[in-house]
This record gives sequence, C-alpha cells and structure tokens, in this order.
Amino acid sequence: MTVAIVGASGAVGQELMRILEQRKFPVEKLLLFGSERSAGKKYLFKGKPHTVKLLADNDDFRDVDIAFASAGGSTSARFAETITRHGTIMIDNSSQFRMDPDVPLVVPEINADDALQCPRRIIANPNCTTIMLVVALHPIEQLSHITRVRVSSYQSASGAGAAAMEELEQQYRELLNDGKVKTISKFPHQLAYNVIPQIDVMTPNDYTKEEMKMFLETQKIMHSNISVSATCVRVSSLRSHSEAVWIETEHPLSVDTIRKAMKDAPGVKLVDDPQNYVYPMPLESAGHDDIYVGRIRRDLSSENGITLWLTGDQIRKGAALNAVQIGEHIVRSKN
Amino acid sequence: MTVAIVGASGAVGQELMRILEQRKFPVEKLLLFGSERSAGKKYLFKGKPHTVKLLADNDDFRDVDIAFASAGGSTSARFAETITRHGTIMIDNSSQFRMDPDVPLVVPEINADDALQCPRRIIANPNCTTIMLVVALHPIEQLSHITRVRVSSYQSASGAGAAAMEELEQQYRELLNDGKVKTISKFPHQLAYNVIPQIDVMTPNDYTKEEMKMFLETQKIMHSNISVSATCVRVSSLRSHSEAVWIETEHPLSVDTIRKAMKDAPGVKLVDDPQNYVYPMPLESAGHDDIYVGRIRRDLSSENGITLWLTGDQIRKGAALNAVQIGEHIVRSKN
Repeated sequence: MTVAIVGASGAVGQELMRILEQRKFPVEKLLLFGSERSAGKKYLFKGKPHTVKLLADNDDFRDVDIAFASAGGSTSARFAETITRHGTIMIDNSSQFRMDPDVPLVVPEINADDALQCPRRIIANPNCTTIMLVVALHPIEQLSHITRVRVSSYQSASGAGAAAMEELEQQYRELLNDGKVKTISKFPHQLAYNVIPQIDVMTPNDYTKEEMKMFLETQKIMHSNISVSATCVRVSSLRSHSEAVWIETEHPLSVDTIRKAMKDAPGVKLVDDPQNYVYPMPLESAGHDDIYVGRIRRDLSSENGITLWLTGDQIRKGAALNAVQIGEHIVRSKN
Repeated sequence: MTVAIVGASGAVGQELMRILEQRKFPVEKLLLFGSERSAGKKYLFKGKPHTVKLLADNDDFRDVDIAFASAGGSTSARFAETITRHGTIMIDNSSQFRMDPDVPLVVPEINADDALQCPRRIIANPNCTTIMLVVALHPIEQLSHITRVRVSSYQSASGAGAAAMEELEQQYRELLNDGKVKTISKFPHQLAYNVIPQIDVMTPNDYTKEEMKMFLETQKIMHSNISVSATCVRVSSLRSHSEAVWIETEHPLSVDTIRKAMKDAPGVKLVDDPQNYVYPMPLESAGHDDIYVGRIRRDLSSENGITLWLTGDQIRKGAALNAVQIGEHIVRSKN
C-alpha cells in the first residue's frame, strides 16, 4: 500500500511513523507531507530516509491508499478534497470533520465497522480525552447501559504538541535559573507549578470545546444517549493524560464485575492494586498502547455509581495508534 | 491572651504566626513548642524573637488560653491532655479528633457556634480539601439542599509539608541537571512531571483516608446527609489546591443564582470570566485567604446538577487561617 502522513514533523506525525513500522503496517511506499516550515526535512522509516514534501493542491495523492492527516483542523479542511479526490481514504486526526454525519468517528475497540461506511472517504479520529474515556466506558456499557458520566481530566503538555512540551521544560529551567517564568506562549498562563482549568476555547455554555468534544464525540462513537459532563484541565506533566471518572449505570454493578470486565477488555490494562501503591500514573503509561484503568470503587454518592481513574498516552492511543488501528481495520476488511 | 503554637517550625506553624500578627489576634504572650529537632530555634513575632520550647508532659500550658496544634495526629493524641488540663482550648489541625462526637469540627463561615460547645476543650480544624469544598457548598445549600457531590482534587506539594515542597523543587532540579529523579521520599512516587492518584493511606473500601475525610467531615460540618465521593490526586504544583466539583441539589438552580450567591458568600472570591481566560488557578490563589470559585456551569448530565472549579491556599484557609478564625470566634463569644 502507498501511505501518506500529512503533518509528518509534528508529535503525532512522528509517532505515526514509529507505530506504522512497529506494527508492520503493510506500507510499500511512504509519502511525507508538511508545511513550508517542515518541507525538506528528512526522517528515517524502515531504515531509509524519507523527505517531507510541501503539502499543495495538486495530484500528489493520486496513488495513495491511506493518508493519515495530523496537521490541524484548518489544514484538514483545506486539503480534504485534494487528499481524497482520487480515492484515497483520509484518516483525520483533527476535529474538523468529527461531527459531520457523513464522516464516521471511530475507536476500533468500540465501533470499528463504522469506518467501512465513509461516503466522503474521510474517517475521523476522536479527541484524545474522548478515546481514553470510551475505551474504559465500553466494557461497562456491555454490562449495563451508562446514563451519566462526570469526568475531570489531568492533561499533559503533550496535548498541545511538541513545542508545548519544550515550553513546559523551559519554564522549569527559567524558574530554577532566574526564579521567574519568562516564556508563556503555548498556554494561556504559566503551566509550571500551576494547573490551568481551560483547554481549547470557551463555547457559549461556558464549557470549553475540549469539554464539549467529550460530550458529543462519546455519544457518536458509542451510538448512545450517554451524557458526559467534563472539566478539562492542563497539569504540568509532559506526556500521557489522566481522568477521574464517575459513571452511573441503569443497574448497579459490583466493583468485582467491573474489574473482571476491564481485565478482558481490548485496549485496557487493569492497574488496580491501590493497597500496594499500584494505580495508573502518567509517568508509567507514557509510551504504552493501553489505557491504564484503576482505583475502581463504588461511587459513595450513588447506588448505581462507579468511580475510577485512568491514564493513557495521548500521542499513542489518544492519537497516532488509534488512527493506525483504523487503518488496520480497513486493510483487514479489504482482504 | 496567652497563645501557644505547637509545631511552630512547620509550614502551618509558620503561617499561624504570620496570620496571628496580620489579623491582630489579641496575643499578649506567645509560646512556641516543637519537637527535639526544632526546640531552640528562634522566630520573630511582632518584631521580637521567640524561642521554640521542647513539647513535654509538664505544666507549660497552665496559663495558655488558646493553643494551636499543628504537629500531626500522634503528637496531638499524646499531648491533648497536657495541653488542655488547665483549661486551655486546643484548636487542633490534625485528623486525630475530627470525628470524635465530643469534639466540634468547625469552618467558621458555616458552623462557627459549634466551637462554643467543646466538652473536651478540643476543637478540630477540618482537612484542607474539606474546608475548601464546604466554603463553596454552603452558599448553594442555602438555596437548595445538596444531595450528592463528586469531587476530584488537584493537590499541591504543600499539603505534605514544607519538606515536600522542597523535594518537588529538588526533583525538577535533578531532572534538569541529570535527566533523572533521585530524591523520592515524601511522596510514594516521583511527582515531578507526574500525577499521583493517592493521598494518605488506603482504607478498606479502596478510598484513601484523604477521600474519606471529604465524605465524613463534610457531613459533620454541614450537619447534613450530603454524600461526597472524592478522588484525591497530587499534582506537581507547589502551593494551593484545586478541586473540580459536581453538585446535585434537590431543586434545580440556575448558574446566575449560584454566581450571585458566591459573590455574597463569606470566604469566597468569585473568579469566573472564562471567556476572558479568567478562572481560579493555584498560582493566583496561593498566599490569599479566599477560596476562589469559577467555571460555574450546568452539569450537562443532570437537571439538578451544577459543576464548578475552585482553588484555595491549603496552608492559609486550608489550615492556619481557619484555625485562627475559630480562635477569633471564641474570643468574640467571651467578650
């Protein structure tokens, strides 16, 4: 297959190259695309250098089977037609098409087959915090319908890209050297030693876009009327997001039942031995594929409630890995 | 009045001295007590040096009117009799006596008069995360009875004491200098660039003690059957805790009604202009008295639900300030 990566120099683009190679995705030819800033850069794939080509409105995608796009919503919007017009399937990491009724929004553990109905030849990859959440919700939904979810996130700098991770490290360096942070550009406020309860812009109901993504995308992926109220918060970790989740189900479920379901759930690693200081932490899930789930216990405020804690690598399952898994399902369905 | 501080060298002890002076608490004579490690140390109060005396089972407290104890639960347990036997009122910061039915648990904005009924001459200061929460819950309870609360915390290193704050800074220094954290002693895991979903030890129901404090103490302070399900999490900020809170009330309340109530509530500062990037953040509430409340909005998952975000200085309102306010109420009631 001929595969393209749009936004090859970004944190997710780089991870896509690693994952395609690690998982032996059937890539015969890999094309890399980027902005003027990254065009000309060279990256190794399967030991061979590949040069980033400038993304332009031409016929570069004519022979491409699958294009992974991860260069932001405006680039996806502008180049979707260019990418798909010769039959290429575009797996898009941006939020641009996620709520388009003609674009499936897919987490393969949950609704893989939705990817096979894509009239616009675009398949959307959900937002990182949504992916992590639904991977843990799905095994519970199999046991009893989930009616309500409250979730607060602890999101790493990685969610804002590689430059944001560097900015956070730079802020700590400035604090140690000068006692004062000078570099604030990728986040609305100083992040070092701080907590910022805003990710993405506000919407009219005073939820942020990031929070509304969790509400809207979860319903679309799970084909459910589930209501998610989210508070999305940036903390000063580098990579891997965490979420504290309260889940209400139609029927009460025991903690043991949920632990067993998590143990068997694809994409989940049960990390739940709190009496021995074992629970999911971003430092430990970083670089790994699974969503780590732990601290499973009764919601003390509700008979039908469960609460749990999860972490997952935002760049892997939260972005690049999920996109590649969608690609794998398409390849399997064609064979 | 003769006032004593037990645990004078700790983060809270030091803050107690500053607050007693700032608020012109009627201190005629101040006695400082500490462990062998801090005995002999000198601290300025109202411009004069005061020497820390070794805390011992003797008659040192004979003429003390109010003793603020902040040296941990075991010290409070061991010396409560020594401190109170000559009539001294002990305002205790530890968790030792909080759930004792003969010991009032007081947040002056809510249940100040409970402090006047203390048969053991001990008044307990609640846990920091509970204090911050109830100060924000109380104005809502006045509008409609609160039935359920879900809360996840973002707690600073300060909650584990001054040495823990130094350890966090040391971890960032080690990461910048050697790329690796060597010092892990005050927290169960590396905290720099991490998030740890455990504060205090686990209890049999897999909630931590810190989380159960929020459940039990909130009921006692608010004289209510309110059920709080908490997830308490350590993040790598230095000072000031944050909380994401979901609140269910018997009757639905509008966001505007709650904003107005918060504006008028004692101990609360409304910081809620999210469209202009204004919301509570630990870096900004650190060193201040009020609990900062913002991001007030409807709980998208419940008709009777509200969600909000708050931050507060753990060492001030979360500990030392609340204790001094209890002392002030006792002084007022005697005059």
